[in-house]
Amino acid sequence: MSDNTSSSEPRLRLRIFFGDDVMLGPGKADLLEHIRETGSIAAAGREMAMSYKRAWSLVEGMNRGYREPLVDSSRGGTKGGGASLTAAGEAVLAHYRKIEAITVREAADEIAALRAMLPDMSDGK
Amino acid sequence: MSDNTSSSEPRLRLRIFFGDDVMLGPGKADLLEHIRETGSIAAAGREMAMSYKRAWSLVEGMNRGYREPLVDSSRGGTKGGGASLTAAGEAVLAHYRKIEAITVREAADEIAALRAMLPDMSDGK
Repeated sequence: MSDNTSSSEPRLRLRIFFGDDVMLGPGKADLLEHIRETGSIAAAGREMAMSYKRAWSLVEGMNRGYREPLVDSSRGGTKGGGASLTAAGEAVLAHYRKIEAITVREAADEIAALRAMLPDMSDGK
Repeated sequence: MSDNTSSSEPRLRLRIFFGDDVMLGPGKADLLEHIRETGSIAAAGREMAMSYKRAWSLVEGMNRGYREPLVDSSRGGTKGGGASLTAAGEAVLAHYRKIEAITVREAADEIAALRAMLPDMSDGK
């Protein structure tokens, strides 16, 4: 759903900056989503073709950026290190997805008007 | 208004992708706005700390990407080369700004909820 590359449907990428330090965008949101799905930061990074180091760095940044950590993880260890979203992580992801959905829904007319200004993209009216 | 770096108010950056080729985002929107204000692609680029070449390349890309050109320009020439937005350029810019405004307005509650999850940013409750 968040990675729809198939069609000529407009796709939205939305970044929100809070002050100078905290940014939430599609990459971090997708990473949270993949961590929830895979239960692993490394596996989530792999699914996004992102290095282990980069995935960890993003998670650490997110964990520092909010009042509470977004990802609960046990790096390495006997179980090989699992990860899951905290309640705060679930909330941040849900808010972000809702902002995306609100934009797509509420700005549908404007987005359609822009699209109508493009050259034919096959399936038009 | 579009370049508000002063406060801890959340700022939004929104990119819209149409198919694989056309993208509209804050940089192009700001460039269009500066061209309208300055009447010059070079001056618009300068105000954005963007090279002349880059500004021209973005304009050429936008002019090719839509049914009609967004910027009307006379490169060089005796008058030194002026530029202005076409009706299509004005429309694209207006649609983009409206999508931004709709998101900020309609997703205000979600954005506030995210902001409340951040550490104290001075003026919040």
